[in-house]
Amino acid sequence: MEVKKAFKTFRYSADLAWTGARNGRASAAGKADIAVGSPPDFRGEEGVWSPEHLFVSSLSTCLMLTFLAMAERRAIEVAAYASTAEALLENVDGKYQITAVTVRPRITLKSADALEPAREIMGRVEANCFISNSIKSRIDLQPEFQIAPA
Amino acid sequence: MEVKKAFKTFRYSADLAWTGARNGRASAAGKADIAVGSPPDFRGEEGVWSPEHLFVSSLSTCLMLTFLAMAERRAIEVAAYASTAEALLENVDGKYQITAVTVRPRITLKSADALEPAREIMGRVEANCFISNSIKSRIDLQPEFQIAPA
Repeated sequence: MEVKKAFKTFRYSADLAWTGARNGRASAAGKADIAVGSPPDFRGEEGVWSPEHLFVSSLSTCLMLTFLAMAERRAIEVAAYASTAEALLENVDGKYQITAVTVRPRITLKSADALEPAREIMGRVEANCFISNSIKSRIDLQPEFQIAPA
Repeated sequence: MEVKKAFKTFRYSADLAWTGARNGRASAAGKADIAVGSPPDFRGEEGVWSPEHLFVSSLSTCLMLTFLAMAERRAIEVAAYASTAEALLENVDGKYQITAVTVRPRITLKSADALEPAREIMGRVEANCFISNSIKSRIDLQPEFQIAPA
Protein backbone atom coordinates (compact mmCIF):
# COMPACT_ATOMS: atom_id res chain seq x y z
CA MET A 1 0.00 0.00 0.00
CA GLU A 2 1.29 3.40 -0.96
CA VAL A 3 1.35 5.89 1.89
CA LYS A 4 1.02 9.48 0.73
CA LYS A 5 2.23 12.44 2.70
CA ALA A 6 0.71 15.83 2.10
CA PHE A 7 3.70 17.81 0.84
CA LYS A 8 3.14 21.41 -0.12
CA THR A 9 3.96 22.67 -3.59
CA PHE A 10 5.54 26.07 -4.28
CA ARG A 11 5.70 28.37 -7.29
CA TYR A 12 8.46 30.82 -8.25
CA SER A 13 8.02 33.43 -10.95
CA ALA A 14 10.41 35.72 -12.74
CA ASP A 15 10.04 38.05 -15.69
CA LEU A 16 12.40 38.85 -18.52
CA ALA A 17 12.55 41.70 -21.02
CA TRP A 18 14.81 41.95 -24.05
CA THR A 19 16.80 45.20 -23.99
CA GLY A 20 18.53 44.86 -27.38
CA ALA A 21 21.46 42.97 -28.92
CA ARG A 22 22.04 39.84 -26.78
CA ASN A 23 20.93 41.45 -23.52
CA GLY A 24 17.93 41.52 -21.25
CA ARG A 25 16.71 42.40 -17.80
CA ALA A 26 15.49 39.73 -15.36
CA SER A 27 13.10 40.83 -12.65
CA ALA A 28 11.11 39.26 -9.85
CA ALA A 29 8.75 40.67 -7.23
CA GLY A 30 10.59 42.69 -4.60
CA LYS A 31 14.08 41.93 -5.90
CA ALA A 32 16.73 44.04 -7.64
CA ASP A 33 16.82 43.53 -11.42
CA ILE A 34 19.61 41.47 -12.98
CA ALA A 35 21.28 42.44 -16.26
CA VAL A 36 21.34 39.18 -18.23
CA GLY A 37 22.54 38.15 -21.66
CA SER A 38 24.83 36.04 -23.80
CA PRO A 39 28.38 35.50 -22.58
CA PRO A 40 31.26 36.74 -24.77
CA ASP A 41 31.66 33.14 -26.06
CA PHE A 42 28.32 33.49 -27.82
CA ARG A 43 28.38 37.04 -29.17
CA GLY A 44 27.51 38.68 -25.87
CA GLU A 45 29.40 40.81 -23.41
CA GLU A 46 31.20 40.35 -20.11
CA GLY A 47 29.11 42.54 -17.83
CA VAL A 48 25.88 40.53 -17.87
CA TRP A 49 24.81 37.33 -16.11
CA SER A 50 24.58 34.60 -18.72
CA PRO A 51 22.15 31.68 -18.36
CA GLU A 52 25.17 29.54 -17.52
CA HIS A 53 26.30 31.89 -14.74
CA LEU A 54 22.76 31.98 -13.31
CA PHE A 55 22.62 28.18 -13.45
CA VAL A 56 25.90 27.87 -11.50
CA SER A 57 24.75 30.39 -8.90
CA SER A 58 21.36 28.72 -8.53
CA LEU A 59 23.08 25.44 -7.71
CA SER A 60 25.79 26.78 -5.41
CA THR A 61 23.28 28.94 -3.51
CA CYS A 62 20.98 25.94 -3.06
CA LEU A 63 23.82 23.76 -1.79
CA MET A 64 24.84 26.47 0.70
CA LEU A 65 21.30 27.04 1.98
CA THR A 66 20.76 23.29 2.30
CA PHE A 67 23.99 22.93 4.29
CA LEU A 68 23.11 25.88 6.55
CA ALA A 69 19.61 24.52 7.24
CA MET A 70 20.95 21.06 8.05
CA ALA A 71 23.74 22.53 10.22
CA GLU A 72 21.21 24.59 12.14
CA ARG A 73 19.12 21.52 12.89
CA ARG A 74 22.22 19.84 14.32
CA ALA A 75 23.25 22.99 16.24
CA ILE A 76 26.50 23.21 14.29
CA GLU A 77 27.86 26.74 14.51
CA VAL A 78 29.11 28.01 11.16
CA ALA A 79 31.39 31.06 11.21
CA ALA A 80 31.76 31.52 7.45
CA TYR A 81 30.80 29.90 4.17
CA ALA A 82 32.20 30.88 0.78
CA SER A 83 32.08 28.90 -2.41
CA THR A 84 33.44 28.93 -5.90
CA ALA A 85 31.66 27.01 -8.63
CA GLU A 86 32.35 26.27 -12.26
CA ALA A 87 30.09 24.84 -14.94
CA LEU A 88 31.40 22.86 -17.88
CA LEU A 89 29.44 23.42 -21.09
CA GLU A 90 30.07 20.63 -23.57
CA ASN A 91 28.59 19.40 -26.79
CA VAL A 92 27.08 15.93 -26.37
CA ASP A 93 25.61 14.26 -29.44
CA GLY A 94 25.37 17.58 -31.24
CA LYS A 95 23.77 19.49 -28.37
CA TYR A 96 25.39 21.82 -25.90
CA GLN A 97 24.59 21.14 -22.26
CA ILE A 98 26.12 21.73 -18.85
CA THR A 99 27.53 18.29 -18.20
CA ALA A 100 29.21 19.01 -14.87
CA VAL A 101 29.44 21.62 -12.16
CA THR A 102 32.37 21.68 -9.74
CA VAL A 103 31.49 23.35 -6.44
CA ARG A 104 34.14 24.13 -3.85
CA PRO A 105 32.65 25.38 -0.56
CA ARG A 106 35.09 26.62 2.08
CA ILE A 107 33.40 26.38 5.45
CA THR A 108 34.72 27.81 8.68
CA LEU A 109 33.35 26.18 11.83
CA LYS A 110 33.39 27.76 15.26
CA SER A 111 34.56 24.59 17.00
CA ALA A 112 36.66 21.54 16.12
CA ASP A 113 33.92 19.36 17.62
CA ALA A 114 31.69 20.37 14.71
CA LEU A 115 34.07 19.05 12.07
CA GLU A 116 32.81 15.49 11.94
CA PRO A 117 29.06 16.25 11.95
CA ALA A 118 29.65 19.05 9.39
CA ARG A 119 31.40 16.60 7.05
CA GLU A 120 28.59 14.11 7.54
CA ILE A 121 25.99 16.75 6.67
CA MET A 122 27.92 17.88 3.60
CA GLY A 123 27.81 14.30 2.39
CA ARG A 124 24.01 14.52 2.27
CA VAL A 125 23.65 18.07 0.92
CA GLU A 126 23.52 17.17 -2.76
CA ALA A 127 20.70 14.65 -2.21
CA ASN A 128 18.69 17.24 -0.30
CA CYS A 129 19.21 20.29 -2.52
CA PHE A 130 16.15 21.15 -4.62
CA ILE A 131 18.27 22.37 -7.53
CA SER A 132 20.65 19.41 -7.66
CA ASN A 133 17.51 17.25 -7.77
CA SER A 134 16.33 19.26 -10.79
CA ILE A 135 19.39 19.19 -13.06
CA LYS A 136 21.08 16.57 -15.22
CA SER A 137 24.62 17.84 -14.68
CA ARG A 138 27.07 15.79 -12.64
CA ILE A 139 27.90 17.64 -9.43
CA ASP A 140 31.44 17.45 -8.12
CA LEU A 141 31.25 18.80 -4.57
CA GLN A 142 34.69 19.46 -3.03
CA PRO A 143 34.24 20.97 0.43
CA GLU A 144 37.06 22.28 2.59
CA PHE A 145 36.56 22.75 6.30
CA GLN A 146 38.53 24.87 8.71
CA ILE A 147 38.18 25.93 12.31
CA ALA A 148 37.88 29.60 13.27
CA PRO A 149 40.77 30.94 15.39
CA ALA A 150 39.86 30.93 19.07
CA MET B 1 32.32 4.43 -38.05
CA GLU B 2 31.87 7.23 -35.58
CA VAL B 3 32.54 10.67 -37.00
CA LYS B 4 33.71 13.15 -34.39
CA LYS B 5 33.37 16.87 -34.73
CA ALA B 6 35.65 19.17 -32.80
CA PHE B 7 33.21 21.08 -30.61
CA LYS B 8 34.63 23.60 -28.20
CA THR B 9 33.96 23.37 -24.48
CA PHE B 10 33.29 26.39 -22.27
CA ARG B 11 33.55 27.08 -18.55
CA TYR B 12 31.48 29.49 -16.45
CA SER B 13 32.43 30.42 -12.89
CA ALA B 14 30.63 32.24 -10.13
CA ASP B 15 31.41 32.84 -6.49
CA LEU B 16 29.18 32.90 -3.45
CA ALA B 17 29.62 34.28 0.06
CA TRP B 18 27.31 33.75 3.01
CA THR B 19 26.26 37.10 4.52
CA GLY B 20 24.30 35.77 7.51
CA ALA B 21 20.89 34.22 8.24
CA ARG B 22 19.64 32.63 4.96
CA ASN B 23 21.32 35.16 2.71
CA GLY B 24 24.39 35.43 0.52
CA ARG B 25 26.01 37.39 -2.27
CA ALA B 26 26.63 35.85 -5.69
CA SER B 27 29.39 37.37 -7.78
CA ALA B 28 31.08 36.73 -11.11
CA ALA B 29 33.88 38.47 -12.99
CA GLY B 30 32.82 41.86 -14.33
CA LYS B 31 29.16 41.53 -13.28
CA ALA B 32 27.06 43.27 -10.64
CA ASP B 33 26.61 41.20 -7.47
CA ILE B 34 23.27 39.49 -6.80
CA ALA B 35 21.72 39.32 -3.33
CA VAL B 36 20.68 35.66 -3.00
CA GLY B 37 19.04 33.58 -0.30
CA SER B 38 16.13 31.43 0.81
CA PRO B 39 12.66 32.44 -0.30
CA PRO B 40 10.09 33.30 2.40
CA ASP B 41 8.66 29.74 1.98
CA PHE B 42 11.86 28.39 3.51
CA ARG B 43 12.64 30.85 6.28
CA GLY B 44 14.14 33.49 4.00
CA GLU B 45 13.04 36.90 2.86
CA GLU B 46 11.37 38.43 -0.19
CA GLY B 47 14.12 40.77 -1.40
CA VAL B 48 16.68 38.17 -2.45
CA TRP B 49 16.98 35.93 -5.49
CA SER B 50 16.33 32.38 -4.38
CA PRO B 51 17.92 29.39 -6.15
CA GLU B 52 14.47 28.72 -7.65
CA HIS B 53 14.20 32.26 -9.03
CA LEU B 54 17.73 32.04 -10.49
CA PHE B 55 16.84 28.67 -12.05
CA VAL B 56 13.73 30.13 -13.72
CA SER B 57 15.67 33.14 -15.01
CA SER B 58 18.51 30.97 -16.30
CA LEU B 59 16.03 28.97 -18.37
CA SER B 60 13.92 31.85 -19.66
CA THR B 61 17.03 33.87 -20.57
CA CYS B 62 18.49 30.90 -22.44
CA LEU B 63 15.25 30.34 -24.36
CA MET B 64 15.14 34.04 -25.33
CA LEU B 65 18.77 34.15 -26.46
CA THR B 66 18.32 30.93 -28.43
CA PHE B 67 15.24 32.36 -30.16
CA LEU B 68 17.01 35.65 -30.95
CA ALA B 69 20.06 33.86 -32.38
CA MET B 70 17.91 31.60 -34.56
CA ALA B 71 15.76 34.56 -35.66
CA GLU B 72 18.84 36.52 -36.65
CA ARG B 73 20.10 33.65 -38.81
CA ARG B 74 16.75 33.65 -40.63
CA ALA B 75 16.72 37.48 -40.91
CA ILE B 76 13.52 37.67 -38.85
CA GLU B 77 13.15 41.16 -37.41
CA VAL B 78 12.08 41.08 -33.77
CA ALA B 79 10.70 44.32 -32.32
CA ALA B 80 10.23 43.16 -28.74
CA TYR B 81 10.53 40.07 -26.57
CA ALA B 82 9.23 39.79 -23.01
CA SER B 83 8.62 36.66 -21.03
CA THR B 84 7.10 35.49 -17.80
CA ALA B 85 8.14 32.18 -16.33
CA GLU B 86 7.04 30.12 -13.36
CA ALA B 87 8.68 27.12 -11.73
CA LEU B 88 6.71 24.47 -9.88
CA LEU B 89 8.55 23.01 -6.88
CA GLU B 90 7.05 19.70 -5.86
CA ASN B 91 7.95 16.82 -3.61
CA VAL B 92 8.51 13.65 -5.62
CA ASP B 93 9.31 10.47 -3.70
CA GLY B 94 10.28 12.48 -0.65
CA LYS B 95 12.51 14.94 -2.47
CA TYR B 96 11.71 18.45 -3.55
CA GLN B 97 12.53 19.26 -7.14
CA ILE B 98 11.43 21.68 -9.83
CA THR B 99 9.21 19.40 -11.85
CA ALA B 100 7.99 21.92 -14.41
CA VAL B 101 8.63 25.42 -15.69
CA THR B 102 5.97 27.30 -17.63
CA VAL B 103 7.47 29.96 -19.92
CA ARG B 104 5.28 32.48 -21.72
CA PRO B 105 7.26 34.60 -24.21
CA ARG B 106 5.40 37.49 -25.87
CA ILE B 107 7.18 38.31 -29.10
CA THR B 108 6.48 41.30 -31.28
CA LEU B 109 7.56 40.93 -34.91
CA LYS B 110 8.15 43.82 -37.28
CA SER B 111 6.30 42.16 -40.16
CA ALA B 112 3.42 39.71 -40.58
CA ASP B 113 5.59 37.79 -43.06
CA ALA B 114 7.80 36.78 -40.16
CA LEU B 115 5.00 35.11 -38.22
CA GLU B 116 5.27 31.66 -39.77
CA PRO B 117 9.08 31.34 -39.66
CA ALA B 118 9.09 32.76 -36.11
CA ARG B 119 6.61 30.09 -34.97
CA GLU B 120 8.68 27.43 -36.68
CA ILE B 121 11.84 28.64 -34.91
CA MET B 122 10.08 28.75 -31.53
CA GLY B 123 9.17 25.11 -32.04
CA ARG B 124 12.88 24.27 -32.09
CA VAL B 125 14.09 26.61 -29.32
CA GLU B 126 13.73 24.17 -26.44
CA ALA B 127 15.82 21.52 -28.20
CA ASN B 128 18.56 24.06 -28.90
CA CYS B 129 18.73 25.83 -25.54
CA PHE B 130 21.76 24.83 -23.47
CA ILE B 131 19.85 25.15 -20.19
CA SER B 132 16.78 23.19 -21.23
CA ASN B 133 19.23 20.45 -22.28
CA SER B 134 20.70 20.52 -18.75
CA ILE B 135 17.60 20.28 -16.56
CA LYS B 136 15.15 17.53 -15.68
CA SER B 137 12.11 19.78 -15.38
CA ARG B 138 9.34 19.58 -17.96
CA ILE B 139 9.23 22.80 -19.97
CA ASP B 140 5.86 24.15 -21.00
CA LEU B 141 6.62 26.83 -23.60
CA GLN B 142 3.58 28.96 -24.47
CA PRO B 143 4.63 31.66 -26.93
CA GLU B 144 2.39 34.49 -28.11
CA PHE B 145 3.22 36.41 -31.26
CA GLN B 146 2.03 39.80 -32.36
CA ILE B 147 2.88 42.21 -35.15
CA ALA B 148 4.18 45.70 -34.41
CA PRO B 149 1.89 48.54 -35.55
CA ALA B 150 2.98 49.92 -38.91
